[in-house]
Amino acid sequence: MAACNLLVLHGPNLNMLGQREPALYGHQTLAEINQLLETRAAELEATVELFQSNSEGALIDKVQEACSRIDGILINPGAFTHYSYALRDALAAAGLPLIEVHLSNIFAREPFRRRSVIAPEASGLLCGLGADSYLLGLEALVNVIKKQRGKNYE
Amino acid sequence: MAACNLLVLHGPNLNMLGQREPALYGHQTLAEINQLLETRAAELEATVELFQSNSEGALIDKVQEACSRIDGILINPGAFTHYSYALRDALAAAGLPLIEVHLSNIFAREPFRRRSVIAPEASGLLCGLGADSYLLGLEALVNVIKKQRGKNYE
Amino acid sequence: MAACNLLVLHGPNLNMLGQREPALYGHQTLAEINQLLETRAAELEATVELFQSNSEGALIDKVQEACSRIDGILINPGAFTHYSYALRDALAAAGLPLIEVHLSNIFAREPFRRRSVIAPEASGLLCGLGADSYLLGLEALVNVIKKQRGKNYE
Amino acid sequence: MAACNLLVLHGPNLNMLGQREPALYGHQTLAEINQLLETRAAELEATVELFQSNSEGALIDKVQEACSRIDGILINPGAFTHYSYALRDALAAAGLPLIEVHLSNIFAREPFRRRSVIAPEASGLLCGLGADSYLLGLEALVNVIKKQRGKNYE
Amino acid sequence: MAACNLLVLHGPNLNMLGQREPALYGHQTLAEINQLLETRAAELEATVELFQSNSEGALIDKVQEACSRIDGILINPGAFTHYSYALRDALAAAGLPLIEVHLSNIFAREPFRRRSVIAPEASGLLCGLGADSYLLGLEALVNVIKKQRGKNYE
Amino acid sequence: MAACNLLVLHGPNLNMLGQREPALYGHQTLAEINQLLETRAAELEATVELFQSNSEGALIDKVQEACSRIDGILINPGAFTHYSYALRDALAAAGLPLIEVHLSNIFAREPFRRRSVIAPEASGLLCGLGADSYLLGLEALVNVIKKQRGKNYE
Amino acid sequence: MAACNLLVLHGPNLNMLGQREPALYGHQTLAEINQLLETRAAELEATVELFQSNSEGALIDKVQEACSRIDGILINPGAFTHYSYALRDALAAAGLPLIEVHLSNIFAREPFRRRSVIAPEASGLLCGLGADSYLLGLEALVNVIKKQRGKNYE
Amino acid sequence: MAACNLLVLHGPNLNMLGQREPALYGHQTLAEINQLLETRAAELEATVELFQSNSEGALIDKVQEACSRIDGILINPGAFTHYSYALRDALAAAGLPLIEVHLSNIFAREPFRRRSVIAPEASGLLCGLGADSYLLGLEALVNVIKKQRGKNYE
Amino acid sequence: MAACNLLVLHGPNLNMLGQREPALYGHQTLAEINQLLETRAAELEATVELFQSNSEGALIDKVQEACSRIDGILINPGAFTHYSYALRDALAAAGLPLIEVHLSNIFAREPFRRRSVIAPEASGLLCGLGADSYLLGLEALVNVIKKQRGKNYE
Amino acid sequence: MAACNLLVLHGPNLNMLGQREPALYGHQTLAEINQLLETRAAELEATVELFQSNSEGALIDKVQEACSRIDGILINPGAFTHYSYALRDALAAAGLPLIEVHLSNIFAREPFRRRSVIAPEASGLLCGLGADSYLLGLEALVNVIKKQRGKNYE
Amino acid sequence: MAACNLLVLHGPNLNMLGQREPALYGHQTLAEINQLLETRAAELEATVELFQSNSEGALIDKVQEACSRIDGILINPGAFTHYSYALRDALAAAGLPLIEVHLSNIFAREPFRRRSVIAPEASGLLCGLGADSYLLGLEALVNVIKKQRGKNYE
Amino acid sequence: MAACNLLVLHGPNLNMLGQREPALYGHQTLAEINQLLETRAAELEATVELFQSNSEGALIDKVQEACSRIDGILINPGAFTHYSYALRDALAAAGLPLIEVHLSNIFAREPFRRRSVIAPEASGLLCGLGADSYLLGLEALVNVIKKQRGKNYE
Repeated sequence: MAACNLLVLHGPNLNMLGQREPALYGHQTLAEINQLLETRAAELEATVELFQSNSEGALIDKVQEACSRIDGILINPGAFTHYSYALRDALAAAGLPLIEVHLSNIFAREPFRRRSVIAPEASGLLCGLGADSYLLGLEALVNVIKKQRGKNYE
Repeated sequence: MAACNLLVLHGPNLNMLGQREPALYGHQTLAEINQLLETRAAELEATVELFQSNSEGALIDKVQEACSRIDGILINPGAFTHYSYALRDALAAAGLPLIEVHLSNIFAREPFRRRSVIAPEASGLLCGLGADSYLLGLEALVNVIKKQRGKNYE
Repeated sequence: MAACNLLVLHGPNLNMLGQREPALYGHQTLAEINQLLETRAAELEATVELFQSNSEGALIDKVQEACSRIDGILINPGAFTHYSYALRDALAAAGLPLIEVHLSNIFAREPFRRRSVIAPEASGLLCGLGADSYLLGLEALVNVIKKQRGKNYE
Repeated sequence: MAACNLLVLHGPNLNMLGQREPALYGHQTLAEINQLLETRAAELEATVELFQSNSEGALIDKVQEACSRIDGILINPGAFTHYSYALRDALAAAGLPLIEVHLSNIFAREPFRRRSVIAPEASGLLCGLGADSYLLGLEALVNVIKKQRGKNYE
Repeated sequence: MAACNLLVLHGPNLNMLGQREPALYGHQTLAEINQLLETRAAELEATVELFQSNSEGALIDKVQEACSRIDGILINPGAFTHYSYALRDALAAAGLPLIEVHLSNIFAREPFRRRSVIAPEASGLLCGLGADSYLLGLEALVNVIKKQRGKNYE
Repeated sequence: MAACNLLVLHGPNLNMLGQREPALYGHQTLAEINQLLETRAAELEATVELFQSNSEGALIDKVQEACSRIDGILINPGAFTHYSYALRDALAAAGLPLIEVHLSNIFAREPFRRRSVIAPEASGLLCGLGADSYLLGLEALVNVIKKQRGKNYE
Repeated sequence: MAACNLLVLHGPNLNMLGQREPALYGHQTLAEINQLLETRAAELEATVELFQSNSEGALIDKVQEACSRIDGILINPGAFTHYSYALRDALAAAGLPLIEVHLSNIFAREPFRRRSVIAPEASGLLCGLGADSYLLGLEALVNVIKKQRGKNYE
Repeated sequence: MAACNLLVLHGPNLNMLGQREPALYGHQTLAEINQLLETRAAELEATVELFQSNSEGALIDKVQEACSRIDGILINPGAFTHYSYALRDALAAAGLPLIEVHLSNIFAREPFRRRSVIAPEASGLLCGLGADSYLLGLEALVNVIKKQRGKNYE
Repeated sequence: MAACNLLVLHGPNLNMLGQREPALYGHQTLAEINQLLETRAAELEATVELFQSNSEGALIDKVQEACSRIDGILINPGAFTHYSYALRDALAAAGLPLIEVHLSNIFAREPFRRRSVIAPEASGLLCGLGADSYLLGLEALVNVIKKQRGKNYE
Repeated sequence: MAACNLLVLHGPNLNMLGQREPALYGHQTLAEINQLLETRAAELEATVELFQSNSEGALIDKVQEACSRIDGILINPGAFTHYSYALRDALAAAGLPLIEVHLSNIFAREPFRRRSVIAPEASGLLCGLGADSYLLGLEALVNVIKKQRGKNYE
Repeated sequence: MAACNLLVLHGPNLNMLGQREPALYGHQTLAEINQLLETRAAELEATVELFQSNSEGALIDKVQEACSRIDGILINPGAFTHYSYALRDALAAAGLPLIEVHLSNIFAREPFRRRSVIAPEASGLLCGLGADSYLLGLEALVNVIKKQRGKNYE
Repeated sequence: MAACNLLVLHGPNLNMLGQREPALYGHQTLAEINQLLETRAAELEATVELFQSNSEGALIDKVQEACSRIDGILINPGAFTHYSYALRDALAAAGLPLIEVHLSNIFAREPFRRRSVIAPEASGLLCGLGADSYLLGLEALVNVIKKQRGKNYE
């Protein structure tokens, strides 16, 4: 079976991880999380393309540009989670397995963070696990893709 | 470091898995998922105590009875997710690391399923990944416990 | 055509019928209603299994236990009507013809009684007819089953 | 005991039954349902006056014109169910036993169909049973009238 | 100054006044109220054209037909008060002084009766005064017209 | 029949009438309206006690102090209309016929003005008629009292 | 390809066009708009049947009567747009291409005008274009019908 | 006057008192509170039957079983306060004086805790007083019963 | 331990107790309740300062004037319960133990009475117990103060 | 009369037309639609400037840059329809005739798509007509501009 | 240009500043703030009249009494911000430049504090700046008045 | 004490100031306001870095890039005020004193403009003062920074 080529998208402000509100988001930097993702991807016989932007338009451009050469998307949409219907449409149009992740438990914070406009288009969602949200989400994404390929998933 | 003793709780109707609406919940039975959980737990050097009930009271009794001898709880609350404040109170009172899981993506179904009264008390939530919600949730739970023990988690 | 085997479920507090608030629910006891149901079932060439419980879990257990040997369910969910998503899930999983009944007209009482979380999974609903809600509901259930068997129902 | 004289009202678009969206409403025409109602009425020693209109005003006129010579009303208000407070007032003013029926289960369709402005003025409601909603509703109506006459109904 | 020609409109079910729910609406018939209106109009040097219908369309037709030969409208819209935006549009298009009246106090009854879709287009509203709602409303309407004519009204 | 002794209450800011926003409330001063009320009261063989205050507490004190020597209350609650449950309770405790009036049509202005917390305790309401709201309201109040005395009011 | 036979429905108060609130709806009369529609229809090799009524029931009767001999419907439902579920059901039952039009931009007016209960059953909607809403809507309707016939529309 | 026989019901998780979140609920155990209740009952010449359960069904069974031999009920419904309409119905059916108590001030916590579905059926409610909620509630309950017996209560 | 000096505040209309709606509030006058409060205070080795006003401002003035010489506040805010954020702020600023009481069960009356803007700032709340709400509330207040002094309360 | 210079704006994801969800949006590519727009513009003696972006900021920049040299704007805001108040402000500031179009019927899809924050600033809206939404919208826009120029509008 | 005569109004509980909840409102007393206001007014060649009251009625009386001799109003309405429509009406009737200030950021506190019923009648609002809210608000008020006088403000 | 280095951010469409809707926003251009800000900053011994963008992403990039070399932020978020949670997160992550300003009074315009998602993260807010919102906001920001430095701020 061919390797999985995965796109990992980090939404706005995630480039500030480690510097920013560590009580909420931990001390790991995005570079460190990206390093962990690449290591885990290798273990899963997958490749990851990593992309962060503070711009909704740039994230949509990336999804459109990459969608024909990747097998699935792992996204932490940051605050776009709560209102970016444009990003949602881009992800839906990609038509690929999609996993949404969050470092913190968005259901235990301000009320506005409890609503994800992305989630109805995702296969699954993981949150509240720190970097594990990403790493376990990556594993979940690979499994979704493998099941789809093997036709043995319902 | 001592092994983790974990409680895995399955809420109402999950004993019917495999028989029930496979388009939504897959063909795996609860026994098969429990088998997978035990195997994965062994790999993680953890033990799992497995419990299913259709009764809110029985689930609460179990949490209370077990809470002094376990290190964390993995729960799929089934439909209790949406209204059982009593179960929520029991889990909060236990004061243990808590991971909530769902087989299906509860954010892509009927509106009433989008609200979890349990989630604000959980460390994290995984949904939409089929049996992987349980297996990756188990791994996440062990990691939460380890970080807590190692004092190196914030 | 084989006889219909029907399960009749009475939810919480219905065991107090006759004693309890007769202005609202009439003077008939549950035993009397059950007697009427058995008589009517016989006329319809059907058998009825009768079960009452104040416990949500016990009602769900009953649905699960019986669902493989019955042809349809007649339920008066009592107050569970308004919030028991767990009972709803059990009835949906049973995958059988389902009729919901209420002695009183739930749309002419307190606002909270106007919402049924069960009804979206039912074939039909009858309310406000006293014991007739049960008896006519039984007849309706038998007809639903017969049409289903005869393939001549759309 | 004197025979019951009943008024059966069919609201807007019910004259198109059989032609219209049979997946939702079945293949029976209104004429066939009316025929079944007359037969059943005869069995119940009742007479039925049958009336259909697409006009709210005509239905109200009919209720007013008939109310002094009938003993009860069976109504399928069609879409007027959801907003015709004028029809509701007419039925309330008639001061007669009233049964509301629907062919389909209005609680399993679009949200706007779940609200009946008529139901708070009805004795009872039956829905989701196809033509049986009418036939069993007719039987229920006769029983309500009989109980009222016999003074043995509470 | 020329006499005022007034249109008095009675909405659905008001033809049943006196027969219908006297505890709510009193024992006076519509004919008696109309008689009082004609007497009062004569005292106010006005003429009244009286019209009742259970049909929204007929009321709109009447407004359109009469609007070029009358000086003001007194309306008891009955239950159309709460939802007939079509009647509202007809009254707004007439561009005449408009007084809305109700026999009962619509703010002391069911919640749905508290909303008038007509009132934002009216000059004034009187309710809860029985036949006085009409009679004082008539006087108010004549005053509005006179002030408009005398240009001394702001 | 004894004369009616009436209390007329003017709520906050009504002492500024004539000076204040004449486009909304007209050019008449409160003194002029009071004069008109006294004249009309004399015609109706009634006496009026007139009271204005910007203080909720003073209005309540007045209601309590006067309630044993008056026969009815005419009130323009001004902005207290929309939130003073304390004034509402005082008026309800007085147990007297009560008419609520407003100079402007409160249903054609800002949304917050459409809700009256006083109205559910009033016999009737008049609004949008300028000083006529008071004068016709006074007449209505006298009629309510007379009917009550004559026992011929239902 | 056979000509298109179209039904154009004008809802309540549209017969007053030109006389009524020209600042909102323009100076053209309905007769002038109908003339423009007939001319445009001829250009499009279509025929139009034109019908206006202030009565919901009459509009529904027309839809039912015409639906077997026409190919599509163009409707300006007037105020029925906002609440006539009965008209919606009639249009849905007709099962024909349906275009909804409004002279004014209903999204730039009072909040209640922003909701169309008809639109979910329409192919498309045009508003705010004055008579062009009708004329361009007619063209759109013919195109929808042609595509449907040519099977080359998805 | 005969002694009062009282039923004291403790809802879910109250058996964990003292162990559980003492910052919120204090350090007293349920056994200690029960001891205080028995002492206070003796002072008030009353007997108390004490019952705790985590099961909604068991609490309802207890109410039904005891209602014919007791004079009043003191209940801390725990989290069932917020959604158990079934428990509410059981308490209403018992038809006995009912006092609802809570250790903490439910109006100063999460929004969902501010709503009690039980309270509309209770005589009175005490909350926020720790064990005093129970002890003063017991005294209040005895007083309600005595007044009822003495017929001097309105 | 020094005696407790307590302030008892009665909100608007409570001076009318006994005269006003006895079916709701009982026949006791405020003077009688005040007498009972003084007797009970003496038994509890406390003093009470009693104050009633219909004026929100006067109640706030009283709280501010007294707060430095009292140990706790017992308040029946009357209708101010539902909207007086100014009174709430005054009570919060006082920084003293606070008990809120109501004679009637505010949760079993009109919906607007179910919301207390004061309660989130109170230690506890008692309602529905008639004069006992005050007397038991006084006892509760003394206990809160004693525990605070003894440092043995959490 | 001078030619019309028009700006046509395509919002996020519209560059993917034809590739993306053809069941919803058809098989035409944006290039094809742009070609059709240019052809139609030529027929209407107008020029079109065509611009697509996935970036809200870029769309706003374009509106600002072009607004002094164009005569009107045709926009399909894509998902920005539902939340981009910034784009709305830019379009309002441009002060030009504005037509909003959508390929699909936004009123027949998910609830969030039914709200347009752009529409209150538009002259008119067309939706559900596929490419015809653009082409007829272009024609409507030219007509709006011509009427404005000819002063013969309204 | 003549000096500005300004009215500074302090609403309920602001007389307790410095004593009350300093974490929220700072340590400055109202006397100190008033001193700062007088100094700053002198610098701005303005005079300030200072008034505080806990009574809504007294604040309204003050506005009415002063409005003919002042040029503008600076108000911190305290908790009246959230519900005093009577104060709002008084300020609107004054017809003077109006600046609303708050010491704390009302948008970062309890939800009920986020709504100001005063703000829609104000020129501007400043909050969260401690005493600077007053001092900068004073400067803003003087500027508004000067611009108004100089006719060079739009 | 070192000088303050301040970042002034202008959100979308503010570059059009002066050209755009002067009735709402005045005739000053952004360049003029920037000039005023620089002058005022110099008076306050502060420096200002000025940045405007129509792009949410560019504003976030700027906040991130500048946050380590500035002492505070003054922002007019334009329409991003109402929905840009991403900008909110960026400002919160910066962890600097923050003042939000608006030229117009956002509480006196369309309802959607009354909600600021930024304000809960700001120290204070000024609106409705035209350019003074910026200039006084700058002064407020410098004061906040100075107090923070002097440790004498609470």
